[in-house]
Amino acid sequence: YDYDGPSMKTSVPGPRSQALTKQLGEIQNNLPFKPEMDSVTLVRSTSSVTMRRAEGTTWWTWTTTACWMSTLRSRPSQLSTLVNRPALGILPPENFPDKLTESLLSVSPSGMTRVQTMACGSCSNENAYKAMFIWYRNKERGHNMPSDEDVSTCMINKAPGCPDLSILSFNGGFHGRTMGCLATTHSKAIHKLDVPSFDWPMAPFPRLQYPLEEFTRENAQEEARCLEETEDVIVKWRQKGNPVAGIVIEPIQAEGGDNHASPDFFKGLRNIARKHGCAFHVDEVQTGGGATGKYWAHEHWGMDDPADIVSFSKKLLTGGYYHKDELQADKPYRIFNTWMGDPSKNLLLAEVLNVIRRENLLEEVTRSGKALLNGLYDLQAQYPGILSRARGQGTFCAIDICDDATRNSILLKARDKGVLLGGCGDRSIRFRPALIFKEYHVHIFLNIFNDVLAEH
Amino acid sequence: YDYDGPSMKTSVPGPRSQALTKQLGEIQNNLPFKPEMDSVTLVRSTSSVTMRRAEGTTWWTWTTTACWMSTLRSRPSQLSTLVNRPALGILPPENFPDKLTESLLSVSPSGMTRVQTMACGSCSNENAYKAMFIWYRNKERGHNMPSDEDVSTCMINKAPGCPDLSILSFNGGFHGRTMGCLATTHSKAIHKLDVPSFDWPMAPFPRLQYPLEEFTRENAQEEARCLEETEDVIVKWRQKGNPVAGIVIEPIQAEGGDNHASPDFFKGLRNIARKHGCAFHVDEVQTGGGATGKYWAHEHWGMDDPADIVSFSKKLLTGGYYHKDELQADKPYRIFNTWMGDPSKNLLLAEVLNVIRRENLLEEVTRSGKALLNGLYDLQAQYPGILSRARGQGTFCAIDICDDATRNSILLKARDKGVLLGGCGDRSIRFRPALIFKEYHVHIFLNIFNDVLAEH
Ligand code: FES
Repeated sequence: YDYDGPSMKTSVPGPRSQALTKQLGEIQNNLPFKPEMDSVTLVRSTSSVTMRRAEGTTWWTWTTTACWMSTLRSRPSQLSTLVNRPALGILPPENFPDKLTESLLSVSPSGMTRVQTMACGSCSNENAYKAMFIWYRNKERGHNMPSDEDVSTCMINKAPGCPDLSILSFNGGFHGRTMGCLATTHSKAIHKLDVPSFDWPMAPFPRLQYPLEEFTRENAQEEARCLEETEDVIVKWRQKGNPVAGIVIEPIQAEGGDNHASPDFFKGLRNIARKHGCAFHVDEVQTGGGATGKYWAHEHWGMDDPADIVSFSKKLLTGGYYHKDELQADKPYRIFNTWMGDPSKNLLLAEVLNVIRRENLLEEVTRSGKALLNGLYDLQAQYPGILSRARGQGTFCAIDICDDATRNSILLKARDKGVLLGGCGDRSIRFRPALIFKEYHVHIFLNIFNDVLAEH
Repeated sequence: YDYDGPSMKTSVPGPRSQALTKQLGEIQNNLPFKPEMDSVTLVRSTSSVTMRRAEGTTWWTWTTTACWMSTLRSRPSQLSTLVNRPALGILPPENFPDKLTESLLSVSPSGMTRVQTMACGSCSNENAYKAMFIWYRNKERGHNMPSDEDVSTCMINKAPGCPDLSILSFNGGFHGRTMGCLATTHSKAIHKLDVPSFDWPMAPFPRLQYPLEEFTRENAQEEARCLEETEDVIVKWRQKGNPVAGIVIEPIQAEGGDNHASPDFFKGLRNIARKHGCAFHVDEVQTGGGATGKYWAHEHWGMDDPADIVSFSKKLLTGGYYHKDELQADKPYRIFNTWMGDPSKNLLLAEVLNVIRRENLLEEVTRSGKALLNGLYDLQAQYPGILSRARGQGTFCAIDICDDATRNSILLKARDKGVLLGGCGDRSIRFRPALIFKEYHVHIFLNIFNDVLAEH
């Protein structure tokens, strides 16, 4: 194959990057802006997973979406979708149902035929929570006619109109940063500090030992403990008058450090939700879209009825959530906003799905994911003082570093060799390659990563 | 001029609309979907403010954004902005600072040089609230170092890490539907019902008599009463341990029924905010972008220092907020999300601003707004049993209808004549024409509206 790995043209940050950083810093909060990130052009060819930057440097990135849609260039008829921004809730364009069918509905999770588009992961989850609250209250009432008291109290933020209901979430979970989502996020203090929150319960997410196959007994015990505590928390919150309307969980806790759990754990949780009358919401904002080797990470659980709600965003380019019929709001304008997503993103998604199918990218991901994880196992055996807990599903992989300082030094050294990696949790490095990341890319990467580790 | 008013080709809903409605109804919550709305192509020519629909009917709409950017068709180089979706917080494209300068920064409110882009009105307001909470807590601390207790308690949604702080909002206000925004929204019960909320205070928005010039004394009294109550509420919430970190208000309450207030009222409120150490947030999501005849509705107040935060979305195509330097978060990742807006929308906005300037659209709006309001005054004199309280600024106008049933019948009859109008508040009709709506369009409209009224 032709070499399409990283190629460095300047030291980092280059002069152009520095100038642009300064320019942007004068305009807005650019603190998270990384100095090397001066220009993004995602390059999509049959053999490239790179970004070209202003200085002529070719970077490797691990965080891009599936692929670049060069085909759109040649379809000026679709331009009107890109330049118009309709209010989808009331003015959907004529091709909107067709595009939905071609894109989101062609990959619906098991048991779900309805999808509500939204604009980002946060409004997807916020609205999914609202759908669960509405469903729960109508279930409590036995009908969907609010009382006069409901109507008058809700206008002043008081119960029963704005009821004392909660969403149960998990330690280490991340579900977004708007205030409803943030009350279910428990990954980093920096996200939550100084922002008022709700009195909603948090249950422990299993802390497993890896490789999973080697610790089945210990891990099963840990999962049983977490399930038991979850049930206790549900009972406790009901007793204190703030019942759990819904449970939200990620199939793999991403921001929180790539924490995995077994299909049995999720099956157990699904049953607990059913037993206590809570809706079950699987947040696939990070895991959905193919990186685990299946379109949805929850498909690995092998369940016919995995969830009541599945939310998505990121790799799917548009946000939204699938839901079972019961979770449909009973009246217009209860689940609503101005844009309700953006149809131009459905167009892009339909194209991405075509590429995924045509090029068998999910099989590709499974294959390169296996190569990546095996490579990480080898490196972990070679550098036991630095690396531990290699884990992953598909190319959705991570590994722990001995301490935070070493992690940062590894991230910087990799960057200087043209590979952009990110951290998650307290001391993990996460791998999130594009879906077109192939087995030979894995080997290029492992060589570079080995060089970086050898310097420590 | 050439007639470019509405032209009806079928009865409403036409056969194509019905088929599409059915198709979409099988996929998602389409209850707010209006049957006549089967296809949107916004047509932008020098003399057209219409939408062409599937059946060949030409509608007049009042809710579109400024204009269609035909110029973009001829610039394939900008296509990459349209088809790539970068994560702006960490990977802004190279032309992002330039495009910001050309677009949002060229219309910064007085006293503000910083803008934070966001994707929609809700995340704009949610993040503006977060910025006010962070600012307030750092002010309370006297520095920006959180204590260990702050850090540990915030992870479990408890004070002091997640502090008891509130945002004061107004009766009839609308600021969005995510859970933080929703706690400050008080326009319709349907938005809030069954969704848990915060114990945040609500103050009365002045209920003025129109035309404003005729009731100056009565209106000044009403405004003084509202200011006094606002101050009382701030004191009360401080006393009960849930102090007001920020005040949020619309320059014209839109959803809540097009409620206006005088520059004196807003000056008084700005002073109260200052006196009690609360941030002052002006929500221009509906009013920003030129419809009032100025770029920002708050410019009509004539203040050098109108606000600490101004949020926007809708007509500006991208969401976000301007803020004073003090409101800048002190650390990276405190105000953050995956996409932080969408640069393709800045591109469109820069083009919209060019058109606004080139064609003097703000003057145009002032002129046609005056014609529209005068026309409404005339009709109100002619139909005193049906119409009252005509009011407006620029083309941002509204009028009250005697009762809800008559309002709906008027909306339907106007629709059947090809004019799409919307309601707001309990029994108002609101007018939100595109910025290119000219004086002669006003006369076409007034004729049609007169015909509709004559039938009642
Ligand atoms: S909250 Fe999702 S786009 Fe604004």
